[in-house]
Amino acid sequence: MNTPTNHWVLTFVCTDQPGIVHSISGAIVQAQGNITESQQFTSTESGKFFMRLQVEVKASKEEFSDKIAEVAAKYGATFHIDAVDRKIKAVVLVSKSAHCLNDLLFNQRSGQIPIEVPAVFGNHSDLAELAGFYGIHFESHNISDASTKQTFEKMLREYILKNEIEVIVLARFMQILSPEFCREFEGKIINIHHSFLPGFKGANPYAQAHNRGVKLIGATAHFVTADLDEGPIIEQNVIRVDHGKSKQDLVAMGQDVESKTLAQAVRWFAEHRVLLDNERTIIFH
Amino acid sequence: MNTPTNHWVLTFVCTDQPGIVHSISGAIVQAQGNITESQQFTSTESGKFFMRLQVEVKASKEEFSDKIAEVAAKYGATFHIDAVDRKIKAVVLVSKSAHCLNDLLFNQRSGQIPIEVPAVFGNHSDLAELAGFYGIHFESHNISDASTKQTFEKMLREYILKNEIEVIVLARFMQILSPEFCREFEGKIINIHHSFLPGFKGANPYAQAHNRGVKLIGATAHFVTADLDEGPIIEQNVIRVDHGKSKQDLVAMGQDVESKTLAQAVRWFAEHRVLLDNERTIIFH
Amino acid sequence: MNTPTNHWVLTFVCTDQPGIVHSISGAIVQAQGNITESQQFTSTESGKFFMRLQVEVKASKEEFSDKIAEVAAKYGATFHIDAVDRKIKAVVLVSKSAHCLNDLLFNQRSGQIPIEVPAVFGNHSDLAELAGFYGIHFESHNISDASTKQTFEKMLREYILKNEIEVIVLARFMQILSPEFCREFEGKIINIHHSFLPGFKGANPYAQAHNRGVKLIGATAHFVTADLDEGPIIEQNVIRVDHGKSKQDLVAMGQDVESKTLAQAVRWFAEHRVLLDNERTIIFH
Amino acid sequence: MNTPTNHWVLTFVCTDQPGIVHSISGAIVQAQGNITESQQFTSTESGKFFMRLQVEVKASKEEFSDKIAEVAAKYGATFHIDAVDRKIKAVVLVSKSAHCLNDLLFNQRSGQIPIEVPAVFGNHSDLAELAGFYGIHFESHNISDASTKQTFEKMLREYILKNEIEVIVLARFMQILSPEFCREFEGKIINIHHSFLPGFKGANPYAQAHNRGVKLIGATAHFVTADLDEGPIIEQNVIRVDHGKSKQDLVAMGQDVESKTLAQAVRWFAEHRVLLDNERTIIFH
Repeated sequence: MNTPTNHWVLTFVCTDQPGIVHSISGAIVQAQGNITESQQFTSTESGKFFMRLQVEVKASKEEFSDKIAEVAAKYGATFHIDAVDRKIKAVVLVSKSAHCLNDLLFNQRSGQIPIEVPAVFGNHSDLAELAGFYGIHFESHNISDASTKQTFEKMLREYILKNEIEVIVLARFMQILSPEFCREFEGKIINIHHSFLPGFKGANPYAQAHNRGVKLIGATAHFVTADLDEGPIIEQNVIRVDHGKSKQDLVAMGQDVESKTLAQAVRWFAEHRVLLDNERTIIFH
Repeated sequence: MNTPTNHWVLTFVCTDQPGIVHSISGAIVQAQGNITESQQFTSTESGKFFMRLQVEVKASKEEFSDKIAEVAAKYGATFHIDAVDRKIKAVVLVSKSAHCLNDLLFNQRSGQIPIEVPAVFGNHSDLAELAGFYGIHFESHNISDASTKQTFEKMLREYILKNEIEVIVLARFMQILSPEFCREFEGKIINIHHSFLPGFKGANPYAQAHNRGVKLIGATAHFVTADLDEGPIIEQNVIRVDHGKSKQDLVAMGQDVESKTLAQAVRWFAEHRVLLDNERTIIFH
Repeated sequence: MNTPTNHWVLTFVCTDQPGIVHSISGAIVQAQGNITESQQFTSTESGKFFMRLQVEVKASKEEFSDKIAEVAAKYGATFHIDAVDRKIKAVVLVSKSAHCLNDLLFNQRSGQIPIEVPAVFGNHSDLAELAGFYGIHFESHNISDASTKQTFEKMLREYILKNEIEVIVLARFMQILSPEFCREFEGKIINIHHSFLPGFKGANPYAQAHNRGVKLIGATAHFVTADLDEGPIIEQNVIRVDHGKSKQDLVAMGQDVESKTLAQAVRWFAEHRVLLDNERTIIFH
Repeated sequence: MNTPTNHWVLTFVCTDQPGIVHSISGAIVQAQGNITESQQFTSTESGKFFMRLQVEVKASKEEFSDKIAEVAAKYGATFHIDAVDRKIKAVVLVSKSAHCLNDLLFNQRSGQIPIEVPAVFGNHSDLAELAGFYGIHFESHNISDASTKQTFEKMLREYILKNEIEVIVLARFMQILSPEFCREFEGKIINIHHSFLPGFKGANPYAQAHNRGVKLIGATAHFVTADLDEGPIIEQNVIRVDHGKSKQDLVAMGQDVESKTLAQAVRWFAEHRVLLDNERTIIFH
């Protein structure tokens, strides 16, 4: 082969109907492509068909897109094509807790999470040094009332648009984004909630878990919507606890679960493995 | 040794204060006993001290009780002594689902759960045959309105008192016991709730879990109180699910978790490993 | 629709090459079929392509088979078509331990495992009553030396062939089948090994695990080959243990893991979700 | 209270015999101490009694030691007393992989693991920058043959003795220490093995796991002895994998399990929760 082979990831969503797979695979055969990974799902709730393919093909992104666009037009589908190993652009919002940011940055540097992080924004400056170690621009912005929050969101909005940021990761960011901001970037903001949702919403979930005497505590990575703690769930994990653990112990034990769960959710999102079916996520892992 | 050795389990609860362990261990030394298992815990919430001991000793239950009673009097403690391998008396309440009853009865026959079950009561007759296979008396009682429920509870109450039943196990019993009944037998009724409480209270937790798109489903074994689905939690387990699972799938997958969680809770209760610290349980496993 | 719709499961295996998915999906489009579940995998080790589809179609099994056979001929593939909800025929071999048999029979009766079990064979008669409760024919055969084992295998072979048995499940059967028998029914015999293979092969794995002080014990469901404890692994699970557990405790704790792991493996096999890639299994769950 | 209260952790090991608990608790009562945590275990294999206590007491370490020493003399026990929150001194040995070191250093800085790390030694210089970020001295030493290894061990031995190092952590250190070194520091060297021992000893465990088609991979933290990969196990964890994962995937997925397992083992060791019963560990967590 003289022409280099490209490796594309394709996601394809439309109303379920006969012949979709045949049409898509036909377009791939015509492009002399080779399917290296394939997953599909039909939602009985929404009647939608979801597909994720990885395809090795000599065709350029434009040529391959043109072929898929023909199929998409026929079925009224939306689709997305990206290079398998392209790193997506992420900003991370933080407050004082370091564990989630540390895990994200370590994993992006070691190549486990395909993101590049041009900037970390905090409402405190505690994590400036950690971001600096990974060579990442850090900015601390005061957020103490409605006015400063508005200023922060305006700055963030401009940064996101100017730098073509694809995902906003809330890595234990202890501020609530405005409904307007959440709506504008719906499906692009991932939060880690330090409880097994919907068990303990709101503040101090570990205190709630302790008071209730639960035997497992957990963490939930979810998309942020205007409806607080109610966005579509991407990933959840739990860890066993017992009566001997104090609230402080639960907080400490929960850190590993939070870091791991958020990192997993961001990894899947960056690999285009997370699709939305109304309130629920389809995860092609 | 000519005298046979007895093996007692002792639970001991009082307000925490210095010297308790020394006093109890002193009583055991005097009785020439040998501690084979020992666990203790002091609750920072309630300030109570909890202890569970297994002791090999030649002393009879009465002799051993007398010695411990002296210590208990000194510290204002409540205590309980039982033979380590005595099977406690349980009744099981069921409706139509067989999986929890099957698991309980299989495990009691094989000796994994130290209970004896003189009777199973149902509000349907579906499980008569299964109880019969294990040689257990089965009674079906119609419960369709306030009057029949009252009749059922009256019958059950009399049966429990007459037969010195020590625990009432609700093995997917789809009826709500009256607050009066719950209060009378508080700390002696164990229920399996088919969700990871406090996540999905009330009816149809699997449908709720499906609608919310959670990634883990669970089961909770808890004491029944007059406050529905709010009694102290004894044990919880979860199982991973994904977007491809229907509500029916979740129900089926949940059965193993429910059976295992209820069996574990009943085993610990029967072994005197479950102590109550107000709303929370202390589990000495 | 006047014609009833059939629901077929199709498995399809061949050397990987371009166009397979397009050809299969084309045959399904021609048959006016609807794909309800689809999974595929290409093994980089063997270069083989594996596919499992569930298809709703009006075509009869013969008509659908004819269409798929054309595709298979083109690619040199082997394929298998079955009704999605047909129960496959299984015999179970047992010794004295009841837990795995109890779990299998309970789950087949409740519909969780799509098998029918015309007979259980034991080298002891302990489990006759349990099989009887589920209305299943039970036979006990003495196996004490080479001669009686040969007689047993001869009887079993004839029973399997005469009754078109599709899977032989060893539910804690404490005898080693001859290499000839294993080879004749290769890929059709499923065993539960009471350890996390390849950790503790051979006899008394729980004693080995205890002596080594491991912190997790496990069970492995695998295909039986002539090479003892080395057949392809289907499923594995573990459970946490600690220093306080005796060998007897490990045996008791392991029972749940064994039952669950074997039941899962048999369920997947019966649903045609287990394919063989030389020494490894492909599990389409 | 005018005198500040000290919080000591006491471990106490002797041949099991009647009266030990009474004697120890008596010494604590005399010292007007308050037991805040207590665990004990009698090994049926070795006949040894193990105890770990946390005690709040006004007595100094010397005064408290003197009281316990009297009890220890009576029973022929060995004991150890330390301040509950003292950080023990650790050196970490590394090669090129960063994940375990990153997790250890992050957790020691955030206070989750009570160790202080005066130095990290590597046989490569890749991790110098990471150690530097945490302000820790880093030295790279060439180890390429018997002679350079001897030089390295001589340097390390001197460093350990001079700096009163209490634990040597091998955080994916890809060199085998000499039997002499292992023996000299027996019970003080903790290694992370990237497999679920005893499943896949030796080199390339993930390749072995992949070839065998296992469904779970794991990691084992263990004490290093002269007998390679055979030292007492401290902690083990597993993670589920499937047929779709390549050897490289297993390596990547294993990193989280390795980091977490090693961190847990070091935490327990530093908190004096790990006691040795010949080849097995007693973990008082």
